[in-house]
Amino acid sequence: MSRPIVRYHDGVATSAADHLVSESPVEFRLHDVPIAVLMRTPGDDEVLGLGFALTEGIVLGPHEVDSIKRVEGTAEGDRYRMVLAEGVTVDPEQFRRNFFTSSSCGVCGKASIDAVRVAARSMAPGPMIPAGTISTLSGAMRERQRTFDTTGSIHAAAAFSPSGELIAVFEDIGRHNAVDKLIGHLATTRWPLNHVILFVSGRISFEIVQKAAVAGIPVIGGVSGASDLAVDLGEELNMTVLGFVRDGGFNVYCGADRIL
Amino acid sequence: MSRPIVRYHDGVATSAADHLVSESPVEFRLHDVPIAVLMRTPGDDEVLGLGFALTEGIVLGPHEVDSIKRVEGTAEGDRYRMVLAEGVTVDPEQFRRNFFTSSSCGVCGKASIDAVRVAARSMAPGPMIPAGTISTLSGAMRERQRTFDTTGSIHAAAAFSPSGELIAVFEDIGRHNAVDKLIGHLATTRWPLNHVILFVSGRISFEIVQKAAVAGIPVIGGVSGASDLAVDLGEELNMTVLGFVRDGGFNVYCGADRIL
Repeated sequence: MSRPIVRYHDGVATSAADHLVSESPVEFRLHDVPIAVLMRTPGDDEVLGLGFALTEGIVLGPHEVDSIKRVEGTAEGDRYRMVLAEGVTVDPEQFRRNFFTSSSCGVCGKASIDAVRVAARSMAPGPMIPAGTISTLSGAMRERQRTFDTTGSIHAAAAFSPSGELIAVFEDIGRHNAVDKLIGHLATTRWPLNHVILFVSGRISFEIVQKAAVAGIPVIGGVSGASDLAVDLGEELNMTVLGFVRDGGFNVYCGADRIL
Repeated sequence: MSRPIVRYHDGVATSAADHLVSESPVEFRLHDVPIAVLMRTPGDDEVLGLGFALTEGIVLGPHEVDSIKRVEGTAEGDRYRMVLAEGVTVDPEQFRRNFFTSSSCGVCGKASIDAVRVAARSMAPGPMIPAGTISTLSGAMRERQRTFDTTGSIHAAAAFSPSGELIAVFEDIGRHNAVDKLIGHLATTRWPLNHVILFVSGRISFEIVQKAAVAGIPVIGGVSGASDLAVDLGEELNMTVLGFVRDGGFNVYCGADRIL
Protein backbone atom coordinates (compact mmCIF):
# COMPACT_ATOMS: atom_id res chain seq x y z
CA MET A 1 0.00 0.00 0.00
CA SER A 2 1.29 3.46 -0.90
CA ARG A 3 1.29 6.13 1.81
CA PRO A 4 2.28 9.78 2.08
CA ILE A 5 5.54 10.28 4.01
CA VAL A 6 8.04 13.08 4.58
CA ARG A 7 11.53 12.25 3.34
CA TYR A 8 14.56 14.07 4.77
CA HIS A 9 17.85 14.00 2.94
CA ASP A 10 20.85 16.24 3.52
CA GLY A 11 18.66 18.58 5.53
CA VAL A 12 15.93 18.92 2.90
CA ALA A 13 12.38 17.68 3.59
CA THR A 14 10.20 16.56 0.70
CA SER A 15 6.76 14.96 0.56
CA ALA A 16 6.73 11.56 -1.08
CA ALA A 17 4.71 8.35 -1.41
CA ASP A 18 6.17 5.16 0.01
CA HIS A 19 5.26 1.48 -0.09
CA LEU A 20 5.08 -0.03 3.38
CA VAL A 21 5.28 -3.72 4.00
CA SER A 22 1.88 -5.02 5.06
CA GLU A 23 1.33 -6.68 8.43
CA SER A 24 -1.78 -7.91 10.21
CA PRO A 25 -2.83 -10.67 12.60
CA VAL A 26 -4.25 -14.00 11.52
CA GLU A 27 -5.78 -16.60 13.79
CA PHE A 28 -5.63 -20.30 13.05
CA ARG A 29 -8.04 -22.74 14.61
CA LEU A 30 -7.78 -26.50 14.73
CA HIS A 31 -11.42 -27.34 14.23
CA ASP A 32 -12.86 -24.78 16.66
CA VAL A 33 -9.96 -24.32 19.07
CA PRO A 34 -7.62 -21.34 18.53
CA ILE A 35 -4.07 -22.67 18.23
CA ALA A 36 -2.13 -19.61 17.05
CA VAL A 37 -2.33 -15.91 16.39
CA LEU A 38 0.44 -14.82 14.05
CA MET A 39 1.44 -11.35 12.87
CA ARG A 40 2.05 -11.92 9.20
CA THR A 41 2.13 -10.24 5.82
CA PRO A 42 -1.27 -11.11 4.33
CA GLY A 43 -1.35 -13.60 1.49
CA ASP A 44 -0.76 -17.33 1.19
CA ASP A 45 -2.50 -17.80 4.53
CA GLU A 46 -3.59 -21.36 3.82
CA VAL A 47 -0.01 -22.49 3.17
CA LEU A 48 1.14 -20.50 6.22
CA GLY A 49 -1.34 -22.44 8.34
CA LEU A 50 -0.33 -25.77 6.83
CA GLY A 51 3.38 -24.99 7.17
CA PHE A 52 2.95 -23.89 10.78
CA ALA A 53 1.04 -27.09 11.60
CA LEU A 54 3.79 -29.17 9.98
CA THR A 55 6.85 -27.40 11.41
CA GLU A 56 5.37 -27.31 14.91
CA GLY A 57 4.62 -31.01 14.81
CA ILE A 58 0.87 -30.55 15.13
CA VAL A 59 0.40 -32.80 12.11
CA LEU A 60 2.96 -35.25 10.75
CA GLY A 61 2.37 -34.72 7.03
CA PRO A 62 0.11 -32.93 4.57
CA HIS A 63 -2.05 -36.06 4.31
CA GLU A 64 -3.24 -35.47 7.88
CA VAL A 65 -4.94 -32.19 6.90
CA ASP A 66 -8.26 -32.21 5.06
CA SER A 67 -8.69 -28.46 4.55
CA ILE A 68 -7.72 -24.99 5.78
CA LYS A 69 -10.36 -22.38 5.00
CA ARG A 70 -11.03 -18.77 5.87
CA VAL A 71 -14.07 -18.76 8.08
CA GLU A 72 -14.66 -15.26 9.36
CA GLY A 73 -13.02 -11.86 9.31
CA THR A 74 -12.96 -9.26 12.05
CA ALA A 75 -12.05 -5.60 11.74
CA GLU A 76 -8.48 -6.38 12.69
CA GLY A 77 -7.63 -9.65 11.08
CA ASP A 78 -8.49 -12.94 9.57
CA ARG A 79 -9.45 -16.32 10.92
CA TYR A 80 -8.81 -19.74 9.37
CA ARG A 81 -10.11 -23.14 10.34
CA MET A 82 -8.05 -26.28 9.82
CA VAL A 83 -9.91 -29.57 9.55
CA LEU A 84 -8.00 -32.83 10.01
CA ALA A 85 -8.31 -35.73 7.58
CA GLU A 86 -10.72 -38.49 8.48
CA GLY A 87 -9.34 -40.76 11.16
CA VAL A 88 -6.63 -38.33 12.29
CA THR A 89 -6.93 -37.19 15.87
CA VAL A 90 -5.06 -34.46 17.67
CA ASP A 91 -6.05 -33.11 21.05
CA PRO A 92 -6.35 -29.39 20.29
CA GLU A 93 -6.26 -28.53 23.99
CA GLN A 94 -2.71 -29.86 23.98
CA PHE A 95 -1.77 -27.06 21.61
CA ARG A 96 -4.04 -24.40 22.98
CA ARG A 97 -1.51 -23.60 25.66
CA ASN A 98 1.61 -24.49 23.79
CA PHE A 99 1.24 -22.79 20.46
CA PHE A 100 0.06 -19.30 21.11
CA THR A 101 2.74 -17.60 19.21
CA SER A 102 3.88 -14.75 17.02
CA SER A 103 5.63 -14.88 13.68
CA SER A 104 5.17 -18.65 13.94
CA CYS A 105 8.32 -19.14 15.99
CA GLY A 106 8.63 -22.63 17.37
CA VAL A 107 9.68 -21.89 20.91
CA CYS A 108 6.67 -19.75 21.62
CA GLY A 109 4.39 -21.10 24.19
CA LYS A 110 6.52 -23.87 25.55
CA ALA A 111 5.77 -23.48 29.21
CA SER A 112 8.83 -25.46 30.15
CA ILE A 113 12.37 -24.96 29.00
CA ASP A 114 12.73 -28.71 28.95
CA ALA A 115 10.13 -28.87 26.20
CA VAL A 116 11.97 -26.63 23.72
CA ARG A 117 12.95 -29.36 21.37
CA VAL A 118 9.99 -30.75 19.43
CA ALA A 119 9.93 -34.04 17.63
CA ALA A 120 12.72 -34.22 15.07
CA ARG A 121 14.72 -37.14 13.75
CA SER A 122 18.37 -37.33 12.75
CA MET A 123 18.82 -36.84 9.00
CA ALA A 124 20.04 -39.51 6.60
CA PRO A 125 23.14 -38.68 4.53
CA GLY A 126 22.77 -36.58 1.36
CA PRO A 127 21.94 -34.82 -0.82
CA MET A 128 25.36 -33.78 -2.16
CA ILE A 129 25.68 -30.12 -3.20
CA PRO A 130 28.49 -28.53 -5.23
CA ALA A 131 30.17 -25.62 -3.41
CA GLY A 132 29.81 -23.52 -6.56
CA THR A 133 26.03 -24.01 -6.46
CA ILE A 134 25.79 -22.73 -2.90
CA SER A 135 27.47 -19.47 -3.90
CA THR A 136 24.61 -18.77 -6.35
CA LEU A 137 21.71 -19.18 -3.90
CA SER A 138 21.75 -15.71 -2.39
CA GLY A 139 21.60 -13.94 -5.75
CA ALA A 140 18.96 -16.32 -7.12
CA MET A 141 16.66 -15.69 -4.16
CA ARG A 142 17.23 -11.93 -4.22
CA GLU A 143 16.09 -11.78 -7.86
CA ARG A 144 12.71 -13.18 -6.84
CA GLN A 145 12.09 -11.00 -3.75
CA ARG A 146 9.35 -8.90 -5.31
CA THR A 147 8.06 -7.25 -2.14
CA PHE A 148 11.57 -6.44 -0.94
CA ASP A 149 12.02 -4.50 -4.16
CA THR A 150 9.20 -2.12 -3.25
CA THR A 151 9.43 -1.96 0.56
CA GLY A 152 13.05 -2.69 1.43
CA SER A 153 12.06 -4.46 4.62
CA ILE A 154 10.64 -7.94 4.35
CA HIS A 155 12.09 -11.39 4.94
CA ALA A 156 12.25 -14.19 2.39
CA ALA A 157 12.62 -17.98 2.42
CA ALA A 158 13.42 -20.01 -0.68
CA ALA A 159 13.66 -23.69 -1.57
CA PHE A 160 16.33 -24.95 -3.96
CA SER A 161 17.14 -28.34 -5.43
CA PRO A 162 20.62 -29.78 -4.73
CA SER A 163 21.67 -28.60 -8.19
CA GLY A 164 20.63 -25.02 -7.39
CA GLU A 165 17.30 -24.87 -9.20
CA LEU A 166 14.98 -22.41 -7.43
CA ILE A 167 11.74 -24.21 -6.50
CA ALA A 168 9.81 -21.46 -4.71
CA VAL A 169 10.19 -18.18 -2.77
CA PHE A 170 7.89 -16.69 -0.12
CA GLU A 171 8.11 -13.31 1.59
CA ASP A 172 6.78 -12.17 4.96
CA ILE A 173 7.53 -9.52 7.55
CA GLY A 174 8.21 -12.41 9.95
CA ARG A 175 11.14 -14.63 9.08
CA HIS A 176 9.48 -17.66 10.68
CA ASN A 177 6.34 -17.03 8.65
CA ALA A 178 8.30 -16.92 5.40
CA VAL A 179 9.68 -20.37 6.23
CA ASP A 180 6.25 -21.73 7.17
CA LYS A 181 4.64 -20.40 3.99
CA LEU A 182 7.39 -22.02 1.95
CA ILE A 183 7.13 -25.37 3.73
CA GLY A 184 3.32 -25.32 3.55
CA HIS A 185 3.56 -24.74 -0.19
CA LEU A 186 6.16 -27.48 -0.68
CA ALA A 187 4.05 -29.89 1.35
CA THR A 188 1.28 -29.64 -1.22
CA THR A 189 3.59 -30.08 -4.21
CA ARG A 190 6.42 -32.38 -3.06
CA TRP A 191 6.73 -34.41 0.13
CA PRO A 192 8.97 -35.56 1.82
CA LEU A 193 11.48 -32.68 1.66
CA ASN A 194 14.72 -34.62 2.15
CA HIS A 195 16.20 -33.30 -1.13
CA VAL A 196 15.44 -29.63 -0.51
CA ILE A 197 17.76 -26.79 0.49
CA LEU A 198 16.08 -24.15 2.66
CA PHE A 199 17.54 -20.68 2.16
CA VAL A 200 16.60 -17.67 4.34
CA SER A 201 17.24 -13.93 4.22
CA GLY A 202 17.60 -13.53 7.98
CA ARG A 203 19.59 -15.05 10.77
CA ILE A 204 19.52 -18.80 11.31
CA SER A 205 18.20 -19.08 14.84
CA PHE A 206 17.29 -22.19 16.79
CA GLU A 207 13.67 -22.05 15.71
CA ILE A 208 14.52 -21.90 12.02
CA VAL A 209 16.65 -25.05 12.31
CA GLN A 210 13.95 -26.68 14.41
CA LYS A 211 11.30 -25.94 11.78
CA ALA A 212 13.50 -27.36 9.01
CA ALA A 213 14.28 -30.41 11.14
CA VAL A 214 10.65 -31.17 11.90
CA ALA A 215 9.84 -30.76 8.20
CA GLY A 216 12.69 -33.16 7.33
CA ILE A 217 14.83 -30.64 5.39
CA PRO A 218 18.53 -31.53 5.78
CA VAL A 219 20.27 -28.36 4.49
CA ILE A 220 19.78 -24.74 5.61
CA GLY A 221 21.63 -21.70 4.31
CA GLY A 222 21.29 -18.01 5.00
CA VAL A 223 22.56 -14.59 4.04
CA SER A 224 23.37 -13.83 7.69
CA GLY A 225 24.90 -15.88 10.52
CA ALA A 226 23.66 -18.74 12.70
CA SER A 227 23.35 -18.84 16.48
CA ASP A 228 25.29 -21.28 18.62
CA LEU A 229 22.15 -23.14 19.66
CA ALA A 230 21.00 -23.39 16.05
CA VAL A 231 24.29 -25.03 15.09
CA ASP A 232 24.13 -27.33 18.13
CA LEU A 233 20.74 -28.59 16.98
CA GLY A 234 21.88 -28.94 13.37
CA GLU A 235 24.90 -30.97 14.45
CA GLU A 236 22.82 -33.19 16.70
CA LEU A 237 20.45 -34.02 13.84
CA ASN A 238 23.14 -34.48 11.16
CA MET A 239 22.04 -31.39 9.23
CA THR A 240 24.11 -28.97 7.13
CA VAL A 241 24.04 -25.31 8.27
CA LEU A 242 25.57 -22.59 6.06
CA GLY A 243 25.89 -18.89 6.95
CA PHE A 244 26.92 -15.63 5.29
CA VAL A 245 26.18 -17.10 1.86
CA ARG A 246 27.03 -13.99 -0.22
CA ASP A 247 29.72 -12.28 -2.23
CA GLY A 248 31.03 -15.55 -3.65
CA GLY A 249 31.64 -17.24 -0.31
CA PHE A 250 29.97 -18.92 2.67
CA ASN A 251 30.65 -20.48 6.07
CA VAL A 252 29.89 -24.11 6.91
CA TYR A 253 28.92 -24.49 10.57
CA CYS A 254 28.19 -28.21 10.41
CA GLY A 255 27.50 -31.01 7.92
CA ALA A 256 30.37 -30.21 5.53
CA ASP A 257 30.15 -33.81 4.25
CA ARG A 258 27.23 -32.80 2.01
CA ILE A 259 29.40 -30.30 0.09
CA LEU A 260 31.23 -31.32 -3.08
CA MET B 1 31.87 -18.44 21.71
CA SER B 2 34.46 -19.36 19.09
CA ARG B 3 33.83 -22.43 16.95
CA PRO B 4 35.59 -24.28 14.14
CA ILE B 5 33.97 -23.71 10.75
CA VAL B 6 34.84 -24.29 7.10
CA ARG B 7 34.96 -21.08 5.05
CA TYR B 8 34.51 -21.23 1.26
CA HIS B 9 35.59 -18.30 -0.87
CA ASP B 10 36.06 -18.27 -4.61
CA GLY B 11 36.03 -22.07 -4.61
CA VAL B 12 38.67 -22.46 -1.90
CA ALA B 13 37.81 -24.11 1.43
CA THR B 14 39.73 -23.16 4.55
CA SER B 15 39.32 -24.09 8.19
CA ALA B 16 38.67 -21.14 10.46
CA ALA B 17 37.31 -20.13 13.86
CA ASP B 18 34.15 -18.04 14.01
CA HIS B 19 32.20 -16.24 16.73
CA LEU B 20 28.54 -17.23 16.76
CA VAL B 21 25.87 -15.16 18.38
CA SER B 22 24.65 -16.88 21.53
CA GLU B 23 21.03 -17.94 21.96
CA SER B 24 19.24 -19.92 24.66
CA PRO B 25 15.83 -20.08 26.32
CA VAL B 26 14.94 -18.28 29.52
CA GLU B 27 11.77 -18.74 31.53
CA PHE B 28 10.20 -15.96 33.57
CA ARG B 29 7.82 -16.67 36.40
CA LEU B 30 5.50 -14.26 38.13
CA HIS B 31 5.84 -15.57 41.67
CA ASP B 32 5.54 -19.28 40.82
CA VAL B 33 3.52 -19.17 37.61
CA PRO B 34 5.42 -19.38 34.29
CA ILE B 35 4.47 -16.35 32.20
CA ALA B 36 6.97 -16.51 29.33
CA VAL B 37 9.68 -18.57 27.70
CA LEU B 38 11.89 -16.39 25.51
CA MET B 39 14.72 -17.35 23.17
CA ARG B 40 17.30 -14.67 23.93
CA THR B 41 20.97 -13.90 23.88
CA PRO B 42 22.05 -14.55 27.49
CA GLY B 43 22.92 -11.54 29.62
CA ASP B 44 20.91 -8.71 31.22
CA ASP B 45 18.17 -11.22 31.95
CA GLU B 46 16.80 -9.25 34.90
CA VAL B 47 16.26 -6.13 32.78
CA LEU B 48 14.82 -8.30 30.00
CA GLY B 49 12.27 -9.66 32.47
CA LEU B 50 11.45 -6.21 33.81
CA GLY B 51 11.19 -4.73 30.32
CA PHE B 52 8.96 -7.56 29.13
CA ALA B 53 6.67 -7.13 32.14
CA LEU B 54 6.44 -3.38 31.45
CA THR B 55 5.97 -3.47 27.67
CA GLU B 56 3.37 -6.23 27.88
CA GLY B 57 1.39 -4.31 30.46
CA ILE B 58 1.83 -6.95 33.17
CA VAL B 59 3.03 -4.21 35.55
CA LEU B 60 2.39 -0.50 35.13
CA GLY B 61 5.76 0.81 36.31
CA PRO B 62 9.07 -0.33 37.84
CA HIS B 63 7.71 0.50 41.31
CA GLU B 64 5.32 -2.43 41.01
CA VAL B 65 8.20 -4.93 40.92
CA ASP B 66 10.05 -5.88 44.08
CA SER B 67 12.69 -8.18 42.58
CA ILE B 68 13.61 -10.42 39.64
CA LYS B 69 16.04 -13.15 40.62
CA ARG B 70 17.50 -16.25 39.01
CA VAL B 71 16.05 -19.19 40.87
CA GLU B 72 17.14 -22.34 39.16
CA GLY B 73 18.97 -23.47 36.05
CA THR B 74 18.29 -26.49 33.90
CA ALA B 75 20.59 -28.07 31.35
CA GLU B 76 18.92 -26.06 28.60
CA GLY B 77 18.23 -22.67 30.06
CA ASP B 78 17.61 -20.34 32.92
CA ARG B 79 14.66 -19.52 35.09
CA TYR B 80 13.86 -16.21 36.80
CA ARG B 81 11.25 -15.38 39.39
CA MET B 82 9.62 -11.96 39.54
CA VAL B 83 8.14 -10.83 42.84
CA LEU B 84 5.67 -7.95 42.88
CA ALA B 85 6.00 -5.05 45.31
CA GLU B 86 3.96 -5.20 48.50
CA GLY B 87 0.31 -4.40 47.87
CA VAL B 88 0.51 -4.94 44.10
CA THR B 89 -1.70 -7.71 42.81
CA VAL B 90 -1.79 -9.30 39.37
CA ASP B 91 -3.61 -12.49 38.57
CA PRO B 92 -0.81 -14.59 37.06
CA GLU B 93 -3.30 -17.02 35.57
CA GLN B 94 -4.49 -14.14 33.41
CA PHE B 95 -1.04 -14.07 31.79
CA ARG B 96 -0.33 -17.76 31.87
CA ARG B 97 -2.30 -18.23 28.69
CA ASN B 98 -1.66 -14.88 27.13
CA PHE B 99 2.06 -14.39 27.44
CA PHE B 100 3.72 -17.58 26.38
CA THR B 101 5.90 -16.07 23.79
CA SER B 102 9.16 -16.01 21.91
CA SER B 103 11.55 -13.14 21.43
CA SER B 104 9.22 -11.22 23.72
CA CYS B 105 6.92 -10.18 20.90
CA GLY B 106 3.76 -8.54 22.13
CA VAL B 107 1.21 -10.29 19.97
CA CYS B 108 2.20 -13.75 21.13
CA GLY B 109 -0.38 -15.56 23.02
CA LYS B 110 -3.32 -13.32 22.35
CA ALA B 111 -5.93 -15.94 21.72
CA SER B 112 -8.19 -13.44 20.08
CA ILE B 113 -7.39 -11.05 17.27
CA ASP B 114 -9.60 -8.53 19.00
CA ALA B 115 -7.16 -8.47 21.90
CA VAL B 116 -4.09 -7.50 19.86
CA ARG B 117 -3.87 -3.97 21.12
CA VAL B 118 -2.79 -3.83 24.75
CA ALA B 119 -3.27 -0.85 27.02
CA ALA B 120 -1.61 2.24 25.57
CA ARG B 121 -2.47 5.90 25.84
CA SER B 122 -2.19 8.64 23.24
CA MET B 123 1.08 10.57 23.63
CA ALA B 124 1.31 14.23 24.69
CA PRO B 125 3.12 16.62 22.29
CA GLY B 126 6.95 16.75 22.35
CA PRO B 127 9.82 16.33 22.65
CA MET B 128 11.12 18.39 19.70
CA ILE B 129 14.04 16.84 17.77
CA PRO B 130 16.27 18.57 15.20
CA ALA B 131 16.30 16.76 11.84
CA GLY B 132 20.10 16.92 11.84
CA THR B 133 20.17 14.99 15.14
CA ILE B 134 18.07 12.17 13.70
CA SER B 135 20.56 11.63 10.91
CA THR B 136 23.28 10.87 13.50
CA LEU B 137 21.39 8.13 15.40
CA SER B 138 22.19 5.21 13.13
CA GLY B 139 25.94 5.81 13.20
CA ALA B 140 25.97 6.47 16.94
CA MET B 141 24.21 3.17 17.68
CA ARG B 142 26.38 1.21 15.27
CA GLU B 143 29.53 2.38 17.07
CA ARG B 144 28.29 0.75 20.25
CA GLN B 145 27.12 -2.61 18.78
CA ARG B 146 29.91 -4.66 20.31
CA THR B 147 28.48 -8.13 19.64
CA PHE B 148 27.58 -7.22 16.06
CA ASP B 149 31.27 -6.46 15.53
CA THR B 150 32.21 -10.06 16.30
CA THR B 151 29.21 -12.03 15.03
CA GLY B 152 27.66 -9.93 12.25
CA SER B 153 24.17 -11.10 13.13
CA ILE B 154 22.54 -9.62 16.20
CA HIS B 155 19.88 -6.94 16.68
CA ALA B 156 20.31 -3.76 18.72
CA ALA B 157 18.03 -1.22 20.41
CA ALA B 158 19.27 2.15 21.67
CA ALA B 159 17.82 5.04 23.64
CA PHE B 160 18.71 8.61 22.79
CA SER B 161 17.84 11.97 24.32
CA PRO B 162 16.03 14.50 22.08
CA SER B 163 19.39 16.22 21.52
CA GLY B 164 20.93 12.98 20.25
CA GLU B 165 22.86 11.90 23.36
CA LEU B 166 23.13 8.11 23.45
CA ILE B 167 21.73 6.86 26.76
CA ALA B 168 22.09 3.07 26.40
CA VAL B 169 22.38 0.24 23.84
CA PHE B 170 21.36 -3.42 24.21
CA GLU B 171 21.92 -6.30 21.80
CA ASP B 172 20.02 -9.56 21.39
CA ILE B 173 19.37 -12.15 18.69
CA GLY B 174 15.69 -11.22 19.04
CA ARG B 175 14.76 -7.67 18.09
CA HIS B 176 11.90 -7.60 20.60
CA ASN B 177 14.27 -8.74 23.33
CA ALA B 178 16.73 -5.95 22.55
CA VAL B 179 13.89 -3.43 23.04
CA ASP B 180 12.75 -5.08 26.28
CA LYS B 181 16.28 -5.16 27.71
CA LEU B 182 16.67 -1.48 26.90
CA ILE B 183 13.32 -0.49 28.40
CA GLY B 184 13.93 -2.64 31.49
CA HIS B 185 17.26 -0.88 31.98
CA LEU B 186 15.77 2.58 31.46
CA ALA B 187 12.97 1.78 33.89
CA THR B 188 15.51 1.37 36.69
CA THR B 189 17.41 4.56 35.84
CA ARG B 190 14.83 7.04 34.45
CA TRP B 191 11.05 6.78 34.45
CA PRO B 192 8.76 7.89 32.80
CA LEU B 193 10.26 7.66 29.31
CA ASN B 194 8.36 10.47 27.57
CA HIS B 195 11.60 12.25 26.55
CA VAL B 196 13.33 9.20 25.08
CA ILE B 197 13.89 8.26 21.42
CA LEU B 198 13.85 4.49 20.81
CA PHE B 199 16.10 3.43 17.94
CA VAL B 200 16.21 -0.12 16.53
CA SER B 201 18.40 -2.01 14.06
CA GLY B 202 15.54 -4.04 12.59
CA ARG B 203 12.18 -3.41 11.04
CA ILE B 204 9.58 -1.41 12.95
CA SER B 205 6.72 -3.88 13.21
CA PHE B 206 3.45 -3.50 15.08
CA GLU B 207 4.82 -5.12 18.20
CA ILE B 208 7.78 -2.76 18.41
CA VAL B 209 5.48 0.29 18.27
CA GLN B 210 3.16 -1.40 20.75
CA LYS B 211 6.02 -1.99 23.21
CA ALA B 212 7.17 1.64 22.91
CA ALA B 213 3.60 2.86 23.32
CA VAL B 214 2.96 0.81 26.44
CA ALA B 215 6.27 2.05 27.88
CA GLY B 216 5.27 5.66 27.07
CA ILE B 217 8.06 6.35 24.53
CA PRO B 218 6.78 8.83 21.90
CA VAL B 219 9.47 8.57 19.19
CA ILE B 220 10.73 5.44 17.37
CA GLY B 221 13.31 5.31 14.62
CA GLY B 222 14.94 2.46 12.76
CA VAL B 223 17.55 1.58 10.18
CA SER B 224 14.96 -0.35 8.16
CA GLY B 225 11.30 0.31 7.28
CA ALA B 226 8.03 0.21 9.20
CA SER B 227 4.95 -1.90 8.50
CA ASP B 228 1.58 -0.40 7.65
CA LEU B 229 0.02 -1.61 10.89
CA ALA B 230 2.92 -0.20 12.91
CA VAL B 231 2.37 3.22 11.36
CA ASP B 232 -1.40 2.95 11.91
CA LEU B 233 -0.81 2.36 15.61
CA GLY B 234 1.77 5.16 15.84
CA GLU B 235 -0.61 7.60 14.18
CA GLU B 236 -3.48 6.57 16.43
CA LEU B 237 -1.38 7.22 19.53
CA ASN B 238 0.19 10.49 18.31
CA MET B 239 3.69 8.96 18.09
CA THR B 240 6.54 9.76 15.69
CA VAL B 241 7.75 6.86 13.53
CA LEU B 242 10.94 7.22 11.45
CA GLY B 243 12.32 4.64 9.00
CA PHE B 244 15.42 4.10 6.87
CA VAL B 245 17.45 6.39 9.14
CA ARG B 246 20.81 6.03 7.39
CA ASP B 247 23.13 7.59 4.85
CA GLY B 248 22.23 11.14 5.87
CA GLY B 249 18.47 10.76 5.40
CA PHE B 250 15.30 9.27 6.85
CA ASN B 251 11.56 8.84 6.22
CA VAL B 252 8.87 10.22 8.53
CA TYR B 253 5.81 7.95 8.54
CA CYS B 254 3.87 9.92 11.14
CA GLY B 255 4.33 12.57 13.83
CA ALA B 256 6.39 15.01 11.72
CA ASP B 257 5.36 17.80 14.13
CA ARG B 258 8.11 16.67 16.55
CA ILE B 259 10.86 17.37 14.00
CA LEU B 260 12.61 20.76 13.91
